[in-house]
Amino acid sequence: MTYCLALKLDEGLAFCSDSRTNAGPDRVSTYSKMHRFSSRDDRQIVILTAGNLGTTQAVISTLERDLKHDAAFNLSNAVYVSDVADYIGELSVKTQRKYASTGPEAGFNATATFIVGGQIKGNDPELYLIYPEGNHITTSDKHPFLQIGEIKYGKPILDRIVRRHTENETAMRCMLVSMDSTMRSNATVGPPIELLFLKRDELKQPAYYRSFEDNDEYLLALRKSWDEKIRQGFSDLPPLDYAAGAGG
Amino acid sequence: MTYCLALKLDEGLAFCSDSRTNAGPDRVSTYSKMHRFSSRDDRQIVILTAGNLGTTQAVISTLERDLKHDAAFNLSNAVYVSDVADYIGELSVKTQRKYASTGPEAGFNATATFIVGGQIKGNDPELYLIYPEGNHITTSDKHPFLQIGEIKYGKPILDRIVRRHTENETAMRCMLVSMDSTMRSNATVGPPIELLFLKRDELKQPAYYRSFEDNDEYLLALRKSWDEKIRQGFSDLPPLDYAAGAGG
Repeated sequence: MTYCLALKLDEGLAFCSDSRTNAGPDRVSTYSKMHRFSSRDDRQIVILTAGNLGTTQAVISTLERDLKHDAAFNLSNAVYVSDVADYIGELSVKTQRKYASTGPEAGFNATATFIVGGQIKGNDPELYLIYPEGNHITTSDKHPFLQIGEIKYGKPILDRIVRRHTENETAMRCMLVSMDSTMRSNATVGPPIELLFLKRDELKQPAYYRSFEDNDEYLLALRKSWDEKIRQGFSDLPPLDYAAGAGG
Repeated sequence: MTYCLALKLDEGLAFCSDSRTNAGPDRVSTYSKMHRFSSRDDRQIVILTAGNLGTTQAVISTLERDLKHDAAFNLSNAVYVSDVADYIGELSVKTQRKYASTGPEAGFNATATFIVGGQIKGNDPELYLIYPEGNHITTSDKHPFLQIGEIKYGKPILDRIVRRHTENETAMRCMLVSMDSTMRSNATVGPPIELLFLKRDELKQPAYYRSFEDNDEYLLALRKSWDEKIRQGFSDLPPLDYAAGAGG
């Protein structure tokens, strides 16, 4: 399984991903699911991947090959990130179809989901989620985040905290809390955790990037502190009026 | 959608359920998903239901009819709650099979999941989750809760707070918080919220029962307080060392 998320903030775009893949309990591996493309100083593009690893690797390697061979459409000559999202959708559907018709079918699932975000000079930052069917959606002002993979455990904290105008450090901390809740509830989401920030109109390089190992001091401090605060907050809640329902 | 959960505590069994059903956005209704059976003073049995409403209603009405007609096996002569769980599994599979072969099949899903818990005189309290396949599982000391329906949003708080030895009022408050997080993230889970407690060896009637409407004062206070505590706790977390990752 996988958990990746991205935010569209006033200040720029933030991305966070785990690195665990599994194809059954004895096939657990570590793969980065965050792919950065910054071939020229006029653009930053980040792709997050979830789903069948064969499909996502095929899509990413095609994007890289197109770039290397300067294909008619590639990541360094695209004018809009939405065109990149369209192209990823096409590649993804093509790959899924190819493998859907080979091999023993029972239980096989070649589907994949992507998040692509970035900024190309002359345009605003853009962020899209690409479904297995190849179509894509973006964020809204009220709902500035996109998630793929194991999305539910980590959603409530995003719903409560993150808005378009949230300051980027706060929003990125919220992404780590969201990721931590997910790791706690689902053993197939795991470190290293990658966290990246693309500041609006800073196109030479990401403003922030870090990979957090499981024993990272900050991650451990955050986890411990959050657990304490949840427990404390919970114990300070108004007590249930037990008498009001006593005697069933 | 639905969210129901039950806990097996040292003090007894706790149950909580929402009341919203939907078959598409314009077919939203309110149905209780908590079914109480206490035909004699020697037993208390509670059933929570999720999934296809046709299937769950068919199963519940068969149980009621068997009871009324004093069938060879019914809820008032069962010796173990696990026998009731087996019987619910059989009825559920039979009903699902019946409807799986009729009508237009595309998108139709007759599956249902149940939680059954209770105590029959002479035995300890028992709690089971019955899968659509008819088999069932119970809790463990480390994992004293069972959930059906939309289970993920509300799981992290249970993971953090609830243990076998948790005091019952605390555990029931945690169930309401878990339910509230779920309602916040999924519009198809909704009030009234029913909350019930069966105290160990109190077989005449449930020790506690309440149905909370959406505007219930306690539920509103709990929701407001929890939201404040989460926000406050979040803002008190150790800040991300932005400098450590600056310059990507």
